[in-house]
Amino acid sequence: MINPNSSLAVTAAIDGGLQPLRVSGGPEIVVESLRTGPRGIATQQDADSVVMPLADWVRAESADAFVLACFSDPGLHTVREAAGGRPVMGIAEWGLLRALTLGERFGIIALSPASVQRQQRYVRQMGLFDRYAGSWPVNASAEDTAGEAIRERLAEAGRSLATRLGADVLVLGCAGMASHRRALQDLIGLPVVEPTQQAVAAALAALLLAES
Amino acid sequence: MINPNSSLAVTAAIDGGLQPLRVSGGPEIVVESLRTGPRGIATQQDADSVVMPLADWVRAESADAFVLACFSDPGLHTVREAAGGRPVMGIAEWGLLRALTLGERFGIIALSPASVQRQQRYVRQMGLFDRYAGSWPVNASAEDTAGEAIRERLAEAGRSLATRLGADVLVLGCAGMASHRRALQDLIGLPVVEPTQQAVAAALAALLLAES
Amino acid sequence: MINPNSSLAVTAAIDGGLQPLRVSGGPEIVVESLRTGPRGIATQQDADSVVMPLADWVRAESADAFVLACFSDPGLHTVREAAGGRPVMGIAEWGLLRALTLGERFGIIALSPASVQRQQRYVRQMGLFDRYAGSWPVNASAEDTAGEAIRERLAEAGRSLATRLGADVLVLGCAGMASHRRALQDLIGLPVVEPTQQAVAAALAALLLAES
Amino acid sequence: MINPNSSLAVTAAIDGGLQPLRVSGGPEIVVESLRTGPRGIATQQDADSVVMPLADWVRAESADAFVLACFSDPGLHTVREAAGGRPVMGIAEWGLLRALTLGERFGIIALSPASVQRQQRYVRQMGLFDRYAGSWPVNASAEDTAGEAIRERLAEAGRSLATRLGADVLVLGCAGMASHRRALQDLIGLPVVEPTQQAVAAALAALLLAES
Amino acid sequence: MINPNSSLAVTAAIDGGLQPLRVSGGPEIVVESLRTGPRGIATQQDADSVVMPLADWVRAESADAFVLACFSDPGLHTVREAAGGRPVMGIAEWGLLRALTLGERFGIIALSPASVQRQQRYVRQMGLFDRYAGSWPVNASAEDTAGEAIRERLAEAGRSLATRLGADVLVLGCAGMASHRRALQDLIGLPVVEPTQQAVAAALAALLLAES
Amino acid sequence: MINPNSSLAVTAAIDGGLQPLRVSGGPEIVVESLRTGPRGIATQQDADSVVMPLADWVRAESADAFVLACFSDPGLHTVREAAGGRPVMGIAEWGLLRALTLGERFGIIALSPASVQRQQRYVRQMGLFDRYAGSWPVNASAEDTAGEAIRERLAEAGRSLATRLGADVLVLGCAGMASHRRALQDLIGLPVVEPTQQAVAAALAALLLAES
Repeated sequence: MINPNSSLAVTAAIDGGLQPLRVSGGPEIVVESLRTGPRGIATQQDADSVVMPLADWVRAESADAFVLACFSDPGLHTVREAAGGRPVMGIAEWGLLRALTLGERFGIIALSPASVQRQQRYVRQMGLFDRYAGSWPVNASAEDTAGEAIRERLAEAGRSLATRLGADVLVLGCAGMASHRRALQDLIGLPVVEPTQQAVAAALAALLLAES
Repeated sequence: MINPNSSLAVTAAIDGGLQPLRVSGGPEIVVESLRTGPRGIATQQDADSVVMPLADWVRAESADAFVLACFSDPGLHTVREAAGGRPVMGIAEWGLLRALTLGERFGIIALSPASVQRQQRYVRQMGLFDRYAGSWPVNASAEDTAGEAIRERLAEAGRSLATRLGADVLVLGCAGMASHRRALQDLIGLPVVEPTQQAVAAALAALLLAES
Repeated sequence: MINPNSSLAVTAAIDGGLQPLRVSGGPEIVVESLRTGPRGIATQQDADSVVMPLADWVRAESADAFVLACFSDPGLHTVREAAGGRPVMGIAEWGLLRALTLGERFGIIALSPASVQRQQRYVRQMGLFDRYAGSWPVNASAEDTAGEAIRERLAEAGRSLATRLGADVLVLGCAGMASHRRALQDLIGLPVVEPTQQAVAAALAALLLAES
Repeated sequence: MINPNSSLAVTAAIDGGLQPLRVSGGPEIVVESLRTGPRGIATQQDADSVVMPLADWVRAESADAFVLACFSDPGLHTVREAAGGRPVMGIAEWGLLRALTLGERFGIIALSPASVQRQQRYVRQMGLFDRYAGSWPVNASAEDTAGEAIRERLAEAGRSLATRLGADVLVLGCAGMASHRRALQDLIGLPVVEPTQQAVAAALAALLLAES
Repeated sequence: MINPNSSLAVTAAIDGGLQPLRVSGGPEIVVESLRTGPRGIATQQDADSVVMPLADWVRAESADAFVLACFSDPGLHTVREAAGGRPVMGIAEWGLLRALTLGERFGIIALSPASVQRQQRYVRQMGLFDRYAGSWPVNASAEDTAGEAIRERLAEAGRSLATRLGADVLVLGCAGMASHRRALQDLIGLPVVEPTQQAVAAALAALLLAES
Repeated sequence: MINPNSSLAVTAAIDGGLQPLRVSGGPEIVVESLRTGPRGIATQQDADSVVMPLADWVRAESADAFVLACFSDPGLHTVREAAGGRPVMGIAEWGLLRALTLGERFGIIALSPASVQRQQRYVRQMGLFDRYAGSWPVNASAEDTAGEAIRERLAEAGRSLATRLGADVLVLGCAGMASHRRALQDLIGLPVVEPTQQAVAAALAALLLAES
């Protein structure tokens, strides 16, 4: 798994959230930072800036499957071309797909207002618009998300998605927030999906099933 | 995992297809037949007839998660209510979701013409209609699917989905056909998704992540 | 017409609402209760529990057409198979279709929060999502709906559908509320559709036109 | 019911098709021609040319409900404004709604290629696009439709809608073809909906239920 | 360009808004009033009443391209038939298309509540529903829009579209408001599209490119 | 206007197609090649590889508006961020929007099978899927498109889009084919849209209207 931003704190938070998926008989899970990535991915330029570096990184890596740990799924289809048939999973993609099985209308807790428009485009591109309640921004950076301080703001965004936009399941719209998932679920009273866990689980499944 | 039809041959075929998902550190995977189920599920009555028995079975079972091994996902939401919070996965649901990550428009290889209309309703219910190329029936029963004889007919249906309806990824529209997946993929030249594998993988992930 | 719940009060209320459709030259209209049905249909399990009994009842009845008097349209397609070509109408289906001719976006006054998710699935399944403003629950049981006491809560839900979700036509999301229809229309100032009346009218039309 | 074209032959054919809906205790059904209407409605100009005359006619008539007997539903919303609260039904609208209850994807047997584009716009306007298989033209005028000679061409169009576009229920895309409905249903093997019958039945229901 | 209402004040306001599009080497732009048109177009009857007069006017005019300056795009397809291959542009059509390039979800500032339903139908007919946040009425007539007094009400409607319905780009839902565009953009903080300018620009382009 | 591939022949062909839009009183139109771009844009990697170079180029250029001359609209939203408020138009975006005004269902003549999937994603992202008949590839490179030899293959693709997929308007799915537009329109008998012309016309309009 590659964190397209260069924040080691975010990478560490992601890594911690994947601990439950490390089973003795299963594949090894390694999380790395993209050294050349920006501190966080807020603008569309941030997202597009990592696409070619991600493709290069994947071409050079010997891993059997890849997960892109940014909720913009930056360059997902380019990285798939670069991976030469090895599975490549996006965290937004799998976060949203998992949400489809936990409720009727998902809402996305977004970091910044700029990411809301990007998410709208992506949900339409995936063809999931009729299941989408909307996105609600908390005005935070990726690095802010690691601490406890942000939890109440995340919960507030989740409640707005539920009561104002009709969401009945929520997706965390950024990597690195696995430590908040359960607490938010309890605070808000709706299922909350952590997307890096879902994408890594999907990659594990693809690896286990590759030969069958 | 519960096979809602009573065919032990189908149950055995399903069980075989799940072998790659049995890892030493992971949860145990058990496949059972619904004793009171019909020989196969062809009509809507067949599908609806197993809903309450499935719910009863789930209430009585001590498993930590459940997978319904029929491509109609019969009673999925009722069984979820009956499971008291334990994860319940449908194979159609997860077969289609996985297909969304392997192409732009999925086609379903259906057993019977009757199941085509049921699949159209279900794809609309899931909100995935803009990603759906269509379904193509092979006029076979669930039990027919175990043998080699049917493979060429499955491939023919897959080719029709690709050339006539524009599918670029295919989903096997019945449980018990895992042994055909790879061969069909090679014959047709498109990704082929086996839905019981995907749903069981999703159940494993839900179990591993339950406490996080 | 069959009321899938066993409440005789609801059955009587439904029967009363159909009086205007009993014309001298037209077919006879009979309303019965499903003896084995639950007191009311609130959960998905309640809805699914009546499907096979309804199919059995239809097979045994000599009526020329059938109407299912529960807003979940439980087992509509199974009952159609069981009816052997005789028309079978669902009240949700016809309530929503009639609403399409009275406004641009319909809202559903729902009994319980649980039924809201079921209605969302059904509206998507019918392919009517772009005409759907939403559902608003009043937290009542089917039996509560017979009395006068509930009227103001129904009106309140209707106003919320109009002002918060943009509905310009309303559908009563339960059988047995015909006595409220006109009063609600006056209170809210929008057309209000009573679904059992619409489904029975559709069944009458199907019978009259059967030979043409 | 008003036939917006001035062809008395079409008006007579429409009138004949409504015979089954004339029940002793029900409302009187009268079919008239719009004297100033064109011979047939083929172009968009033909359709729009009758809108204001229809509105004027409705304002001057003392009928309790109105049906517009042209598959373009010309001026439906203007005529509703002109009718001062009295019900106004369109035959396309009700033909399509009835079809939704008889199959998953409806096809329209269109008279001319020009009407195909008009139907596409109307189906989108109604929000029914996901249930629409397509339209297939037979290159005939409204007057041609009365005779027997056209039946095989209608059947051929219906078969094309089924096999090429995936329709499982068909709607006759013009008034005055009720005499073909049953024969076409038998020839094609799919349900066939005659739209004037459906719209008049809906108007009858609206009248019977007006006071309830 | 033809203003389908007979208000000379509105025609003059439209004409003024087109000044920037008059370039020395480009086509001449002339704005006329439809003498027989209503004072303003509020109801569906108003809109439909101008369709045949517009078609007649276009047939008699020698212009090389036409723009209909009413946000209902009245009779757009009939006028296209009448124009014999010369380009005909609608202002609603082009106002909405331009908005698609400036944001993810457009909102329409509507004059009257009646026009909101008409706009909903039109947005669905155009197939743009997934990009539509909604319409918000200011309860004004076309003639009211010329003065300064209305500006704050327009801004208020724009803010409601943004904060309550999630619009990120706005379209002025009436001709003749070009003088407000920039001020509204500054007041609201979102892009605001003036539709007559967009439709005339599209007509210019069609003329310049006609021979290429 | 920037051609994101480095083929000077394609750049020259684009430049020639814009001649009709150069009017004496209007803005100057300059077409340049992206020196560092690939020879042609076929894969998703090709498309993504030019995004950051395009953004850098736009930041360094003093032009008042920009057009991206590649049918993938590569990096459209990133380039908009980089342009600091100056208009940026994509040729796919404007080719499709213009097509919406010329027919009911547009088809895209695609260069390669790989671009078909990319176009499907983009049409969904734009929210135009219900107006999309499909894409048909001709298996050519961008450079092939300049010559006469390809014209019959383009016409064949256009006919397939019309007769097999129901398109009634066509869009050329690559820059540099303006010299084929009229001939194809005559050969196929449907309107054909050349996207670079449309996007440049839209940029001109944006410039002329910028101060109003």
